[in-house]
Amino acid sequence: MPEFDILEGGVTAPKGFQAASAAAGIKYKGRTDMALVYSDEPCVTAGVYTTNVVKAAPVLWDKKITDSDTKVSAVVVNSGIANACTGQQGLDICRATGQAVADIAGGTAESVLVGSTGVIGMKIDESKITAGVKELMAKKAYGKEAGTEASRAIMTTDTVNKEIAVSFKIGSETVTIGAMSKGSGMIHPNMCTMLGYVTTDAVIEKKLLQEALSDVVQDTFNMITVDGDTSTNDTLLILANGLAKNPAIDKKDENYKLFRDALYFVCEYLAKKMAGDGEGATALFEAKIINAKSVEDAKLMARSVVGSNLSKAAIYGHDANFGRFLCAMGYSGAQFDQNDVQLYFESKAGKMIVFDKGNPVPFEEDEATRILSENAVTILINMNEGSASAAAWGCDLTYDYVKINADYRS
Amino acid sequence: MPEFDILEGGVTAPKGFQAASAAAGIKYKGRTDMALVYSDEPCVTAGVYTTNVVKAAPVLWDKKITDSDTKVSAVVVNSGIANACTGQQGLDICRATGQAVADIAGGTAESVLVGSTGVIGMKIDESKITAGVKELMAKKAYGKEAGTEASRAIMTTDTVNKEIAVSFKIGSETVTIGAMSKGSGMIHPNMCTMLGYVTTDAVIEKKLLQEALSDVVQDTFNMITVDGDTSTNDTLLILANGLAKNPAIDKKDENYKLFRDALYFVCEYLAKKMAGDGEGATALFEAKIINAKSVEDAKLMARSVVGSNLSKAAIYGHDANFGRFLCAMGYSGAQFDQNDVQLYFESKAGKMIVFDKGNPVPFEEDEATRILSENAVTILINMNEGSASAAAWGCDLTYDYVKINADYRS
Repeated sequence: MPEFDILEGGVTAPKGFQAASAAAGIKYKGRTDMALVYSDEPCVTAGVYTTNVVKAAPVLWDKKITDSDTKVSAVVVNSGIANACTGQQGLDICRATGQAVADIAGGTAESVLVGSTGVIGMKIDESKITAGVKELMAKKAYGKEAGTEASRAIMTTDTVNKEIAVSFKIGSETVTIGAMSKGSGMIHPNMCTMLGYVTTDAVIEKKLLQEALSDVVQDTFNMITVDGDTSTNDTLLILANGLAKNPAIDKKDENYKLFRDALYFVCEYLAKKMAGDGEGATALFEAKIINAKSVEDAKLMARSVVGSNLSKAAIYGHDANFGRFLCAMGYSGAQFDQNDVQLYFESKAGKMIVFDKGNPVPFEEDEATRILSENAVTILINMNEGSASAAAWGCDLTYDYVKINADYRS
Repeated sequence: MPEFDILEGGVTAPKGFQAASAAAGIKYKGRTDMALVYSDEPCVTAGVYTTNVVKAAPVLWDKKITDSDTKVSAVVVNSGIANACTGQQGLDICRATGQAVADIAGGTAESVLVGSTGVIGMKIDESKITAGVKELMAKKAYGKEAGTEASRAIMTTDTVNKEIAVSFKIGSETVTIGAMSKGSGMIHPNMCTMLGYVTTDAVIEKKLLQEALSDVVQDTFNMITVDGDTSTNDTLLILANGLAKNPAIDKKDENYKLFRDALYFVCEYLAKKMAGDGEGATALFEAKIINAKSVEDAKLMARSVVGSNLSKAAIYGHDANFGRFLCAMGYSGAQFDQNDVQLYFESKAGKMIVFDKGNPVPFEEDEATRILSENAVTILINMNEGSASAAAWGCDLTYDYVKINADYRS
């Protein structure tokens, strides 16, 4: 895969995209809690959504739109309240949000996608949303700063905002992809409990846009886990407005592959950023499985290792308790023989083997602690049974995770 | 199901069973860490074991024996080291343990079952085990106290020992079932990451003994979860020595049903006791699903609710954040319509509805906090879609869970 240079900014990096934030007082006081992403040209769209049976109203609203051929000009997102488990009133809020944009910019309510994140089971005050939309539409602007402000407004327990942009050439034209995401707690595969918004000025067919997004999400956002809880609101959207005027991406050629690789780069960057910013986390925790019998097995094991509370607590304690990682592999659903397995600790501080084909390897406790004390730690597992590999990302389990979640609503 | 009166004591309550504990210094200092259960008459046995692909040596040893017709006279258990991921040396330790008993009591190494719990990937010093067995065999005794001492020796991070005994009549004979278990962390369904040892003086066919045990475990031990980690060592064994001289239980008649019910009572008691004593726990957390479409769905949802870190943290914070319970039901794998669902908080302090068929119900925050502040809390969920029900048990997620597991090895 080619390397991409990271540009400054996020969703406003591609041509013709504006953004804004507003403090609408939906639940939080004294901070922004609404974000707008706006395109000067109507966009083709694609989306990937939570697999939770309990789907929040914005998920139902957006899916209907991205499944249709309706072109979209804006996305409006709020933090504070998730608008989930809110019955018909929840769906009414989605329509009111879209209509509020349409009243100013023209078009229909259905040309607007919406997103919500926050407390489940609380209702949103419609008047606050519509006032917020007016402010967003009045303030929307081009440029890095507006995009960054939008990425800040969608944060909940996130400690840092998350955005990225990259550009590359298709023919002689420069194509740019920008993105922002939020996600810190309630993060787990399928589909990784987060909100992500990707913008691009690429000319690309809707069908291929959806295919690229669905493909890329499997190895990026769906491979992170903070706490095993798949939320009711997970949403990843992409909007393409075509202003780069590149030769249209309409078949699976080299140009499609390049676009997909760039999208992969963007999504992996944000996925790791979210895992490392898990609620209360002090370290990014990676499990890398190599030489497994199948990719499916490798994924099962990688996710099981980073998802285990006991593994996560060991990472927090810088404790070389490698049996917990083997145990998590063992109940992942994958089949393997422990007598084939080699397990390593790895970080910037070094690499050491601790388990070698069925037997513990004597090791220096101090050296292990040193390796496990970095803010990014990898458990590398060689299965020696095949040639498939996979990586998953999570974070450690800390006092602060419990503290944050023992009273998230306050 | 009939109610059973709880007797004092545990594994030594049935006729002809002795027990002992010893401080063998396997890993811990200044406490007992080996337990013996000994039967005067050889026993028929049955066992249920971890589903983890990585099985500890004692699991492999025991399964071979309980799958055969070999009669068993003793169980030797150690705490401190799990004897898992220890290669051939691990299996050698099992045989050496059995042989040490046989050297004193006669019989073969295979007439002794073994169990281990503690750190994975550490080796056990064989000389400590064999010295421990000698001490156990010298000290073994009848009576309540010996049984209680054994139940204490197998504790790891447990804060209380767990034992129970009940008796009932089959024909004119009194039959007794006694049991002890340990389990606090690494507790999760299939098979519930724990050690459990059940003794009985019943005369019962081996095939029916296994069937009763396998049946009962599904709705008791397999319905508890502390942290979602299924251990490498989970084992539940039952030994029946026949000294009650009851009419043999050799078909599925009323006598079998009574025996099974008593076994169910014993296992549910220990399961709830283990859930409530989860590492760092301050409360027993029960999820009860009623009127579901199928028992499978009801079980999936009940386990998902008590297994969710976010649900568990909310229980710890006495936080009426009911959306988290709905969310956990939603990703459980069960299909349902949230517009049918009613969700209640229930404890000794009262009962209140908080979600009614798709809509949040306004409630008094103080009243909810009062209900959720008891040391046993139930989330009661009426699916209104069928007639199946299930219950699962877990505990809250606390600072102390993280503390205990950030450095369990020390």
